[in-house]
Amino acid sequence: MTARGQREFFTVKTVSEAMSGFRPARRTPVETIALDDALGRVPAESIATPHALPGFGRATVDGFAVRAADTYGASEGLPSYLDLAGEARMGRPPEEEVRPGTAVAIATGAPLPPGADAVLKIEYTQSPTPELIEVLRPATPGEGMVRADEDAAPGAELTRPGRPLRPQDLGMLAAAGITDVPVHARPRVAIISTGDELVAASTTELAPGQVRDSSAPALAALIREAGGEPSFGGIVPDDREALTNTLAATLRKGSDPFRRVEGSLPESDGCDVLVVSAGSSVGARDETAAAIASLGEPGIWCHGLSLKPGKPTLLADVGGVPVIGLPGNPRSALVVFRLIGMRIVRIVGGCTEAPPEPTVQARLTRDLPSAAGRLDIVQVRMSGEDAEPLFGSSSLLSILTTADGYAVVPEAATGLAAGTEVEVILYR
Amino acid sequence: MTARGQREFFTVKTVSEAMSGFRPARRTPVETIALDDALGRVPAESIATPHALPGFGRATVDGFAVRAADTYGASEGLPSYLDLAGEARMGRPPEEEVRPGTAVAIATGAPLPPGADAVLKIEYTQSPTPELIEVLRPATPGEGMVRADEDAAPGAELTRPGRPLRPQDLGMLAAAGITDVPVHARPRVAIISTGDELVAASTTELAPGQVRDSSAPALAALIREAGGEPSFGGIVPDDREALTNTLAATLRKGSDPFRRVEGSLPESDGCDVLVVSAGSSVGARDETAAAIASLGEPGIWCHGLSLKPGKPTLLADVGGVPVIGLPGNPRSALVVFRLIGMRIVRIVGGCTEAPPEPTVQARLTRDLPSAAGRLDIVQVRMSGEDAEPLFGSSSLLSILTTADGYAVVPEAATGLAAGTEVEVILYR
Repeated sequence: MTARGQREFFTVKTVSEAMSGFRPARRTPVETIALDDALGRVPAESIATPHALPGFGRATVDGFAVRAADTYGASEGLPSYLDLAGEARMGRPPEEEVRPGTAVAIATGAPLPPGADAVLKIEYTQSPTPELIEVLRPATPGEGMVRADEDAAPGAELTRPGRPLRPQDLGMLAAAGITDVPVHARPRVAIISTGDELVAASTTELAPGQVRDSSAPALAALIREAGGEPSFGGIVPDDREALTNTLAATLRKGSDPFRRVEGSLPESDGCDVLVVSAGSSVGARDETAAAIASLGEPGIWCHGLSLKPGKPTLLADVGGVPVIGLPGNPRSALVVFRLIGMRIVRIVGGCTEAPPEPTVQARLTRDLPSAAGRLDIVQVRMSGEDAEPLFGSSSLLSILTTADGYAVVPEAATGLAAGTEVEVILYR
Repeated sequence: MTARGQREFFTVKTVSEAMSGFRPARRTPVETIALDDALGRVPAESIATPHALPGFGRATVDGFAVRAADTYGASEGLPSYLDLAGEARMGRPPEEEVRPGTAVAIATGAPLPPGADAVLKIEYTQSPTPELIEVLRPATPGEGMVRADEDAAPGAELTRPGRPLRPQDLGMLAAAGITDVPVHARPRVAIISTGDELVAASTTELAPGQVRDSSAPALAALIREAGGEPSFGGIVPDDREALTNTLAATLRKGSDPFRRVEGSLPESDGCDVLVVSAGSSVGARDETAAAIASLGEPGIWCHGLSLKPGKPTLLADVGGVPVIGLPGNPRSALVVFRLIGMRIVRIVGGCTEAPPEPTVQARLTRDLPSAAGRLDIVQVRMSGEDAEPLFGSSSLLSILTTADGYAVVPEAATGLAAGTEVEVILYR
């Protein structure tokens, strides 16, 4: 029986090998959505403005549109005098031209009249009569205004493909009149939970030995954070035939008599990424691997990652659908999915620039042991600038809920000593 | 006319005064939602587990449940022998007891049989016959298992009120069988845009002097990021009567003949927070202030913030609804709303712990001038560890879309010199 523990992992890879080597080619199709729904969505192409922005010269101060040359040399002691030739109205085409020796009253945001090349702040003027202004300071060309193409030249790129849209990007698109945006469809990510011990979270009374499926709702949340649309393929017992049927049905969008689907996540209906939250015992993991291997080419890419927690991770490609087999322990499953799974969901969803994550520099309060070649993820609780490592079984979810974030012991390190400065990635 | 520029701001406050002094008492009501929809939502109360988690002692390794005392002194040279008394089955109540001198086979996750106080890894055993195991290493009590209450004791708090729910929190609630969560309703945040120059983003052809409303969609996105539900009260001309009517109707959830509502945001139907994206000229801002002042008590709290960009900010309370009057320039409006508005939306939505923001330490490539007592927000583009400040009119949205984040010149500083280490808050 010892031999079984050793043949458990066939093709162990490092996390960096998995990051660089397991890159699915699959991309979701492009769909066009309303701008108001586009926050965080991933543009499928570069979007350019059809015309210059703001589109006309605009005052950026309240004052007078002038020809700057008419004001050269003006001072409080020796003002220049300009005839007031009218007022530029907000939101209307300019009615007056600024001819030499004249000025036009203008408010912030109003269009610059023809002839003007600067706007003089009202504070730098006096109005001795309603028809005349005294200029107390010279204006320089371009002062107090923005040019017609200063926000964007015609054809300028407003958003890059692959970077999720931020609030200001939506504003810029709206300014250009772009109210429909071509984006990658959200990847449909199906979750299948396996394990004879698992029951739905809605189960009120547990029999001894039963546990509720805590991984599926947490994984669904991580999938949403990565821009995916989670669905639930059900809880499957640790039985190769049942598992194979459910996996095949989920990949094929068929129906499957084996699955028990409960809760408010939608049922899966085909998928772009398949997540198997595997049974926790060695035997259950072997069954998962065998079931995935039986489904199709090219099949299993790695079985086992040099990662703690998270060694029993399986990465596969079944007919172009990336399959992520997660460890059965909830904490391990969530660590692996945050590290590897969210990245895969983003790739499939066309995202090439993940949003930055919150981090903080902190000092370890205790030693973190590790092994060379293995990546360790250690949850920490922050206290001022101290990061206190939280140790315990990878079956304990409470370590994740107590933690403020996590530190990483890199593959090259054999551990980190207490007092070491580390970067803590904060949960949000 | 110079006097007008000076009477523009009646009650200028510092940003720190606004942060500490303008704290609305309003809170949204509590609603109960499904766990699967609860990511990022704000629990309205402390939620405790009704029973211990995992609820029974569980193996965390594959091996044999034993009485640790039976293995004391065991070694490869002098093994202990235990009778194999059966197997603990996954998801089922234990059938066998571990009596002195016996062991029960057990897989990771299976319930610990009565009598056992440790699980010995399979690697530390041999099986000379099917009924006997050889123990090659002693087990210590508690090894290879978790206790019935190790993830949570009965009554332990699983989530704190006021902190938005994270993926792992949803997992923990599911483990405890809590599938409905009492949360604060999303604050309904109405946006009203004012300005004679503004037209809806859907306007295809602009007349000279017209600009599309770019602030409303960007503000709606920031409101969503803060947990609010945006609605749109329409574009209102710079006319006190029209503005007063629209404000009153939006606060009262009435209908209003003045407003022009276009686009896919829902129309406002009453609100918990009112955002007025004000006209950009001094005159338009005066009208906004007058309209708000006419609506009710206690009225305007501050008119003008020591903030750049963003001075023409108005904070008010109309009958218990916080009102945020934003500057007309889109960049200023978004800076102010990110700093002040999102905070107010969170407070009203019961959020007392905002999620951490991504930051990075960087070196300024240029001097940032400021004035003592004024907070400056400066957009920067990152290049390695360098933060390059982006300067330009506060009417330019492109500064925000080009930027990777922003640096803050604190109120106490009169500026920051090139080369200074600053914290950059990254946009995501």
